Amino acid sequence: MTRRHVTRFRVEFGDCDPAQIVFYPNFFRWMDAASLQFFAACGIPPWRELEQSDGIIGTPIVDVSARFLRPATYGDAIEIETSIAEWRETSFVMHHEIRRGPDVLVDGREIRIFAQRHPDDPKRIRAVRLPDHLQKFVK
Amino acid sequence: MTRRHVTRFRVEFGDCDPAQIVFYPNFFRWMDAASLQFFAACGIPPWRELEQSDGIIGTPIVDVSARFLRPATYGDAIEIETSIAEWRETSFVMHHEIRRGPDVLVDGREIRIFAQRHPDDPKRIRAVRLPDHLQKFVK
Amino acid sequence: MTRRHVTRFRVEFGDCDPAQIVFYPNFFRWMDAASLQFFAACGIPPWRELEQSDGIIGTPIVDVSARFLRPATYGDAIEIETSIAEWRETSFVMHHEIRRGPDVLVDGREIRIFAQRHPDDPKRIRAVRLPDHLQKFVK
Amino acid sequence: MTRRHVTRFRVEFGDCDPAQIVFYPNFFRWMDAASLQFFAACGIPPWRELEQSDGIIGTPIVDVSARFLRPATYGDAIEIETSIAEWRETSFVMHHEIRRGPDVLVDGREIRIFAQRHPDDPKRIRAVRLPDHLQKFVK
Repeated sequence: MTRRHVTRFRVEFGDCDPAQIVFYPNFFRWMDAASLQFFAACGIPPWRELEQSDGIIGTPIVDVSARFLRPATYGDAIEIETSIAEWRETSFVMHHEIRRGPDVLVDGREIRIFAQRHPDDPKRIRAVRLPDHLQKFVK
Repeated sequence: MTRRHVTRFRVEFGDCDPAQIVFYPNFFRWMDAASLQFFAACGIPPWRELEQSDGIIGTPIVDVSARFLRPATYGDAIEIETSIAEWRETSFVMHHEIRRGPDVLVDGREIRIFAQRHPDDPKRIRAVRLPDHLQKFVK
Repeated sequence: MTRRHVTRFRVEFGDCDPAQIVFYPNFFRWMDAASLQFFAACGIPPWRELEQSDGIIGTPIVDVSARFLRPATYGDAIEIETSIAEWRETSFVMHHEIRRGPDVLVDGREIRIFAQRHPDDPKRIRAVRLPDHLQKFVK
Repeated sequence: MTRRHVTRFRVEFGDCDPAQIVFYPNFFRWMDAASLQFFAACGIPPWRELEQSDGIIGTPIVDVSARFLRPATYGDAIEIETSIAEWRETSFVMHHEIRRGPDVLVDGREIRIFAQRHPDDPKRIRAVRLPDHLQKFVK
């Protein structure tokens, strides 16, 4: 069974650009938040705790794509349905469907890794497998 | 000959997240700005003038994808090399290579349209061909 | 009786900076949204309708101040209690108290005007009194 | 002699809201960046180095105020002239004048502290005096 989580946002005036529609990078801001809320809803502790316990500092993005099907404007209530579409060796694919009522606005896909700081250089990061004790939360 | 334009940004503290690296939606903010600066560098008037003259309100995104190859952090000087990779009937593909010195950080692709407000409903937009008198600027 | 409205937000990972706390301009983003939701809760139509009916394009800021009492971090649920502290001739003072549970995080004050496009130059704006037929909604 | 530093920005399309003018929280984003560039120009190392050497994680804001005198829109070249208006015991006042050519757009004032993580609770921060060996850089 695939876990799904729905995150809700309201489009604000400041999220929109002079064309009166959502400035598109904000959709990624909401997808990123939806990803984190997905993990929180699954029971995964916040990154600042995982950094202490497992050295995991977050799930940086390695690839993203999105199709923008309909624009949104301020006052719109949107919801993002998030699931993990695929697990790979050290990465995974999150699928986000952003809707306003029955209308799909954006269909997005993020490929992410679980990241640790690189032991040789704390300014670099490296991909790691999700530790076994956390696997049960998300699969 | 393909026109190319390089836009430069400095990564600011507030562009980075608690993992100390650029919060990824900001890369799309910079790509969007690079797209507009590309058109300005080609000689296309700003959208607020094109809305008056040709009804064109901007170049909304219809599809975007990006691969994130290396992270960046605050203080980094980045540059975005922008070109139009392909012209289609009512859309076009912009390619953005984001670099820090010789290192490619992000390889991004935006599919955009030239948009007018829909004559039947000003809240909707529709794709149009770039008017002939503007074609010479970008091709 | 002073009208009050409470707007709720969740602090997201991307709202925080490398010091792990909210990047402070985001508090103004939330205050701006809270201002608009205050007016919506009072029954004022959205600006895009008021522009048609009364030429009012929004409530641009003319002065703002805030005291930051406690930091917030991602995952925090915050609420903003908004009221109008004072009406002046062509401006008004909004008060925003941002709280996390019982703790006040930010105490903010925005002075705003109701703005129309300047009749001589659409790139400029000018302050106007709130039209009489809208006064009943907010006082 | 008061040190001054000028930081330059270009207003982007995505920095503007549906009223076609800069969404005001962005002015604070630029002030924050100007503050950091002021310190960098003075010779202060980046926070990630100061955290290692002196435990200083940044200069969080404690109070901010700004007067918005003229709006700006996309394509505008703006500059921020930053100086420290006053040194207090554990805080200091930064003054930012944001201009477009000869016109002052925003007059802003940030009160900041030099912050360390609180020794009893790493989620809290506390104000400290700027270490003596750094004083020469900024005064």
